Amino acid sequence: MKKKITIVDIANHLGITPSAVSKAFSDHPRISDKTKKAVRQAAEQLGYHQNTLATGLRRGRSGLIGVLVPGIHFSFFSTIIKAIEETLSEKGYSVIISQSRDQLAKEIRQLDNLMKAQVEGVIASVSLETNNSAHFQKICKRIPVVLFDRTLRDLEVSKVVVDDYMGSIKAVDHLVEKGYRRIAHIGGLSHVEPFRIRQEGYRAGMQKHGLEILEGYEQSSKLTVADGESIMNDLLKLPSPPDAIYAASDLPAYGVIKCLKERGIAVPQEVGVVGFSNEAYTEMVSPTITTLEQHSENMGLIAAKSMLEQLQHQYDDKEYVPQQSTLTPKLVIRESSNRK
Amino acid sequence: MKKKITIVDIANHLGITPSAVSKAFSDHPRISDKTKKAVRQAAEQLGYHQNTLATGLRRGRSGLIGVLVPGIHFSFFSTIIKAIEETLSEKGYSVIISQSRDQLAKEIRQLDNLMKAQVEGVIASVSLETNNSAHFQKICKRIPVVLFDRTLRDLEVSKVVVDDYMGSIKAVDHLVEKGYRRIAHIGGLSHVEPFRIRQEGYRAGMQKHGLEILEGYEQSSKLTVADGESIMNDLLKLPSPPDAIYAASDLPAYGVIKCLKERGIAVPQEVGVVGFSNEAYTEMVSPTITTLEQHSENMGLIAAKSMLEQLQHQYDDKEYVPQQSTLTPKLVIRESSNRK
Repeated sequence: MKKKITIVDIANHLGITPSAVSKAFSDHPRISDKTKKAVRQAAEQLGYHQNTLATGLRRGRSGLIGVLVPGIHFSFFSTIIKAIEETLSEKGYSVIISQSRDQLAKEIRQLDNLMKAQVEGVIASVSLETNNSAHFQKICKRIPVVLFDRTLRDLEVSKVVVDDYMGSIKAVDHLVEKGYRRIAHIGGLSHVEPFRIRQEGYRAGMQKHGLEILEGYEQSSKLTVADGESIMNDLLKLPSPPDAIYAASDLPAYGVIKCLKERGIAVPQEVGVVGFSNEAYTEMVSPTITTLEQHSENMGLIAAKSMLEQLQHQYDDKEYVPQQSTLTPKLVIRESSNRK
Repeated sequence: MKKKITIVDIANHLGITPSAVSKAFSDHPRISDKTKKAVRQAAEQLGYHQNTLATGLRRGRSGLIGVLVPGIHFSFFSTIIKAIEETLSEKGYSVIISQSRDQLAKEIRQLDNLMKAQVEGVIASVSLETNNSAHFQKICKRIPVVLFDRTLRDLEVSKVVVDDYMGSIKAVDHLVEKGYRRIAHIGGLSHVEPFRIRQEGYRAGMQKHGLEILEGYEQSSKLTVADGESIMNDLLKLPSPPDAIYAASDLPAYGVIKCLKERGIAVPQEVGVVGFSNEAYTEMVSPTITTLEQHSENMGLIAAKSMLEQLQHQYDDKEYVPQQSTLTPKLVIRESSNRK
């Protein structure tokens, strides 16, 4: 077994006492600069690392922040985690990541594991199955919690979201301006906050323009490419098929376009399509996809800063009032809806 | 400040001694099942979490594994981390992620931070700037290290890579079979292992078919879309421009296609294109891109299993012999090279 280097090894190496080594590390005035330098060099040479975790734990601080997301292979989440890690690591925190795989049971288990690992805070986006907040209620009594994107309405913690309602209004406004009238919506599961709100915004947008939501025009799905394809297929069978689709995510929007292309229906001339998230591929595919930019990098930054602020309040023993940051999504107009 | 629940609180709550609570947690035979149940319920109710980190640290185990990658927003890395996290969390380990942002200085700093956080092992893919292994040499004397994809030739640790040489041969074989002869290569920076080897494979493939590598046919780049576009532009100015491009990554392959489309040059009829990595967008863009599948999920799984095996050897005080796992990349033939 590899041997762990301790201050005793450094002391033996230099022929001084362990106590002198310890004092050198804490920059004690009784230790000469020469000895301090020798200790630092010996530490480097022998491969000694101060156990900041143990030191921190004695002060009740692990320096660890847990990040819990459905899956880090989605570019929305990985971009957010990238920003969270960059922001927290600048302040000396390390990020533990865990994934719920969109399962409530796994989310509960992972939260428990994070608590056991003594994280000082949790930044999370909940799973598609999460229909109650009991497991988060327990945690947020103990440590700071920040939710982003997929939040829980009844959980009183700081949140970072985009204005999904406004995003939907922008999507509908744009489609109407381009002359589309029979606009259908492919939503997510409506117990998950952003998808419920995106649907509300869609309804409000349609009402604003005096447009009717025909039977079958509101579809809920798991937001996959296959969902987009099969729902579009079904929509085309309606007595009055839609002339535009606003999807609550980019993958089903891509699926819709795929279905339309295969059937020789021209996008955007015959049917317009708008997605949500501005995933990288939306500007690579043909036609490029009109979508809503969620500012994911910015969301990660704000979530991390909110966490740092709460930790500081906690260290200072000050009260912290949870707050929600709402970013306005930006409509990025591309070929899929931009008919002349 | 939020109060930390300890076994004393549980003891007070139940009117028993802290020692009895502690014994109940460790399933001591002298404690009745009824009391054990009451203790578990009280722990649940009060929000007590056993400090497994502190308990582990006393045994020299933090239960933390560090994962260090250039950036987690690349889907190749996020897919690998997803698999690593899933595999390690099943065995009770948590994953700390950190990013080098492709900078050597940041890689060194992040490795140091991981050591300070007392990780039990490090799984890493090195930055584009990493041209020596000194910082890893120090670490791998102390704890198990596994490198994947971007490895260091002179570091004697377990590695997981794809057979980049074979991948290049497959790409060239395929292009030759489709009738392309003037094949150029857009590589990465050649001090980084996979890119050096992909270039070697390209040369070997050309030689195998008796094809000459003309002046200017070998380009190195940072593998961005813009690199692909500008290099293709330059290649078209050559006296004998290439009729096929084999790029060491998918983004420049996409950039090449973008450039060719803008100039009205037909892909694959006039110029064939092959990328490397099988990123999700390669089957979404038009034309879809022929590429090499790296089995990233599998790489993550193997890296995690190798780490678990080394940790087990360490606990058992057995010698571990580093080994390299080499996966054979699979050529995925799509429109960009599939001319009739």
